[in-house]
Amino acid sequence: MSETCVLVLDAEPLPRLDRLAGRARVVHADEKTLAEQLPAADVLLVWDFLSDAVRRAWPGDGPRPRWVHTPSAGVDRLLPELADARDTVITNARGVFDRPIAEYVLGLVLAMAKDFRGTWELQRQRRWRHRETFRVGGSRATVVGSGPIGREIGRALLALGVKVDLVGRTARDTDPEFGRVHATASLPHLVGDSDWVVCVAPLTPESAGMFDAAMFARMKPEAHFVNVGRGQHVVEDDLVDALLEHRISGAALDVFAAEPLPADSRLWDVPGLLISPHMCGDTLGWRDDLAEQFLDNYDRWERGQPLHNVVDKRLGYVPTAPAAAAAPAGPAAPQP
Amino acid sequence: MSETCVLVLDAEPLPRLDRLAGRARVVHADEKTLAEQLPAADVLLVWDFLSDAVRRAWPGDGPRPRWVHTPSAGVDRLLPELADARDTVITNARGVFDRPIAEYVLGLVLAMAKDFRGTWELQRQRRWRHRETFRVGGSRATVVGSGPIGREIGRALLALGVKVDLVGRTARDTDPEFGRVHATASLPHLVGDSDWVVCVAPLTPESAGMFDAAMFARMKPEAHFVNVGRGQHVVEDDLVDALLEHRISGAALDVFAAEPLPADSRLWDVPGLLISPHMCGDTLGWRDDLAEQFLDNYDRWERGQPLHNVVDKRLGYVPTAPAAAAAPAGPAAPQP
Repeated sequence: MSETCVLVLDAEPLPRLDRLAGRARVVHADEKTLAEQLPAADVLLVWDFLSDAVRRAWPGDGPRPRWVHTPSAGVDRLLPELADARDTVITNARGVFDRPIAEYVLGLVLAMAKDFRGTWELQRQRRWRHRETFRVGGSRATVVGSGPIGREIGRALLALGVKVDLVGRTARDTDPEFGRVHATASLPHLVGDSDWVVCVAPLTPESAGMFDAAMFARMKPEAHFVNVGRGQHVVEDDLVDALLEHRISGAALDVFAAEPLPADSRLWDVPGLLISPHMCGDTLGWRDDLAEQFLDNYDRWERGQPLHNVVDKRLGYVPTAPAAAAAPAGPAAPQP
Repeated sequence: MSETCVLVLDAEPLPRLDRLAGRARVVHADEKTLAEQLPAADVLLVWDFLSDAVRRAWPGDGPRPRWVHTPSAGVDRLLPELADARDTVITNARGVFDRPIAEYVLGLVLAMAKDFRGTWELQRQRRWRHRETFRVGGSRATVVGSGPIGREIGRALLALGVKVDLVGRTARDTDPEFGRVHATASLPHLVGDSDWVVCVAPLTPESAGMFDAAMFARMKPEAHFVNVGRGQHVVEDDLVDALLEHRISGAALDVFAAEPLPADSRLWDVPGLLISPHMCGDTLGWRDDLAEQFLDNYDRWERGQPLHNVVDKRLGYVPTAPAAAAAPAGPAAPQP
């Protein structure tokens, strides 16, 4: 069989690629060259997973890679353009970000409950001002997104004594850890009882813009909102209004409709709004973990075994029980 | 029997005292009047538990109250003056602060791991700067203080996947939750392996100043230190030097040798040092909880039952298995 061509779209160097030495021809692409290199690639590694270049280049002429891997949890930057690519398997970084993002969200919840930002602002002013803070144990959270990251966030909150309502695409009553998973349709009712509303859903046409003025209006004045999903889940102007009008108590955004957030965005200064630069899952060594995950899957590909973390292109994420139909053809399978 | 006199040293109003209506004569004292009122009191409630007035007034003439309750975890503001008061029982607020302080410390650990303060400082400057952060799961913590608050902090860290070394007065190998509790003498060895060192010990002559230049020198450059015990546990100048010389990565202090921290203290501006105004345990409703706890103990006192949370005056805290000898005489018992 001819040597496999692994095309890597990279803005930053990819670690650990020596594991492919002698096994594949590794070719690097940038946003400009990608379209022209795509037809020769068997495998595309979207190392620069924040780029929209794949989506733009995909509809061109010639063969397409049979396997596209994105080292991110979300695959929204590949869809819908790749949704109909029947002979291409998409895999993602499911698993790598679960614990780091759960830690980050738990930290945000505690930081908001204890008003760390207010305390450190007072520190800058050399002011000693005792305040009473929220107790997190016994409070109630709604976590929107029942995939591995949402579940890990839920677990971390449960361990602190928070009552957790998990929201997924479809309701189910037999979840081993959370008892019940609520359907998205229940969200407007759930948020009214929640002290913490956390969005970690995959971005799909159904979930885009779900946090809008109507949703914020249903929340309690004491509620805090956290978004670690995608910026497009939130109607940002509606969130700003909700904060300015004190319809909710606070919010933390790690993701934005436009990233990097432009320096002249009004979001930077909104009282009660914490902004971080899309880093919630990125702990030291994360790039190594992501490279290892791809390379482990490459081992499977080479052996003709079903890949891990195969995305359901219609759903836009990896279903919790992956459909057998989604199992990919390895390099030994007949080329369409 | 004559009506019990409950003397309340209060700087702020005490809630829920209506529960004593018809049962006791409640008399309020301030720092100036306390000495003169003390001889008439059967019970002293040190509602203003940050005051040193009791210690100053205690050695005077006349009878002393048979029961002194401080609505704080630490009793260091009563000792050593009350240590020899053989006919006086001291009780404290053991239990009320466990969960709130554990939440606060967990929040500080996560905030330091994820560099929230750096992120919010960048937000003020409208700067988007992605960084990689520490993963808390898999890290190692030493918690100094094996009473209920230290244990609750340990539990919260364990739930996040942190390896926890608990340090108490004496070593024991059979702790049901932590396996081993280390003796204080092991502390210099333990801190060298720790990413997080948390002080929540009672302040005693042995623990005062335990975090000094020598101890900070044994910590890793990546280590972070948290003090929610008492300010006197730390040689503050030594901590400042350790931070300025990058011998440790960061610290968070909620307690200080002098409180309120004077506006001209050098501590306010030390890079890597987070300052909060002795509020780690004070969640909304905390004063109600503290009043209820005293009043529940008062019910026991009235019935002649042993009080809860009796301090061992020699140790300076409530031992985990209270000595039977410490059980107090109620009002029905013979007056010495």
